[in-house]
Amino acid sequence: MKGRFIVIEGLEGAGKSSAVATVTAWLTQQGHSFITVREPGGTPFAEALRDLVKQDWKEHITAEAELLLMYAARVQLVDNVIKPALTQGQWVVGDRHDLSSRAYQGGGRELGDEKLQHLKHLTLGDFQPDLTLYLDINPEIGLARALQRGDLDRIEKETLEFFHRTRARYREIATQESGICVIDASQDIKQVQRDITEALEQQWPA
Amino acid sequence: MKGRFIVIEGLEGAGKSSAVATVTAWLTQQGHSFITVREPGGTPFAEALRDLVKQDWKEHITAEAELLLMYAARVQLVDNVIKPALTQGQWVVGDRHDLSSRAYQGGGRELGDEKLQHLKHLTLGDFQPDLTLYLDINPEIGLARALQRGDLDRIEKETLEFFHRTRARYREIATQESGICVIDASQDIKQVQRDITEALEQQWPA
Repeated sequence: MKGRFIVIEGLEGAGKSSAVATVTAWLTQQGHSFITVREPGGTPFAEALRDLVKQDWKEHITAEAELLLMYAARVQLVDNVIKPALTQGQWVVGDRHDLSSRAYQGGGRELGDEKLQHLKHLTLGDFQPDLTLYLDINPEIGLARALQRGDLDRIEKETLEFFHRTRARYREIATQESGICVIDASQDIKQVQRDITEALEQQWPA
Repeated sequence: MKGRFIVIEGLEGAGKSSAVATVTAWLTQQGHSFITVREPGGTPFAEALRDLVKQDWKEHITAEAELLLMYAARVQLVDNVIKPALTQGQWVVGDRHDLSSRAYQGGGRELGDEKLQHLKHLTLGDFQPDLTLYLDINPEIGLARALQRGDLDRIEKETLEFFHRTRARYREIATQESGICVIDASQDIKQVQRDITEALEQQWPA
């Protein structure tokens, strides 16, 4: 049987790592074998791209170059890791995927969604997750949490307006498209975990 | 006055470096100030991408990831170096540009020209060189010359069929589109230099 692809999405500090743990605990309970991946990254080449894109550079990194690197890393991960795993019947839990680019580069960097969808189609065709869990959080709260964790990278150092635009695009897409479940990430962690498990059980009833 | 953008294109061993020297000698003679750039590369970020794309990797580098990196490096160079130079009235001589992607990834890697033109439009809009000098050479001859120079990189190690497809796409585009001058690079170097200078004089008569 073919595996399924579950993606966790959301702003910095929304609780994505904790959500990945909740999903993998559920998968273990259900007896599914799985792998976890993160974007950008997940292959040696894609991790090298992740390093480049998160570094501080003395030159201005154009929104387009950043975007293309994200897709280069993504296509590498999808072709070399995600698709082979799914074919072998493994489930795949992804920390970020295509929706991140549409929210961050499309919304935050204001490249627009049409351009993003075009690029997605050019590089990934109609490949997409079976379920996306979007952890919705106010950027003020998320960034405060992320700051507590330590240093922020180049993208995490963006202005609050950037993250408000990113969140707005996340929410816009989540209401317009199917397959995206919005989780209120401002709730206490136990409730967030319950909401995630409920979403999984609704999608794949026992 | 706005500068002009001249691009040198062709397979490995076609004589691009020597052609750049011929063009810059002509520009000096004409009293134009200029810069030279190479692709992929030409900015610290783009040079880092160049290193990644030319390295040998244990994982398979997908044609799409390679293509997206080339465009990421290109948009970075165009926005941060080429456009500012042209605006300041400097001429720009480029060792490779967009036509390389259309020939190598579109032709050699068989991604097709439509996809390439789409991606070009998405990332660079209608920006294009004022003149492209395409040095046409049989891959057997070009690769033999390149081999004499030393180690071949990841892309240069491709099969002869790959380079035949690349050359075929170069020639196809050169005959169909304006602004591309085909130079027979199998001639002796003096004649190649004369042909290049003639092309420049025809484009920009004294």
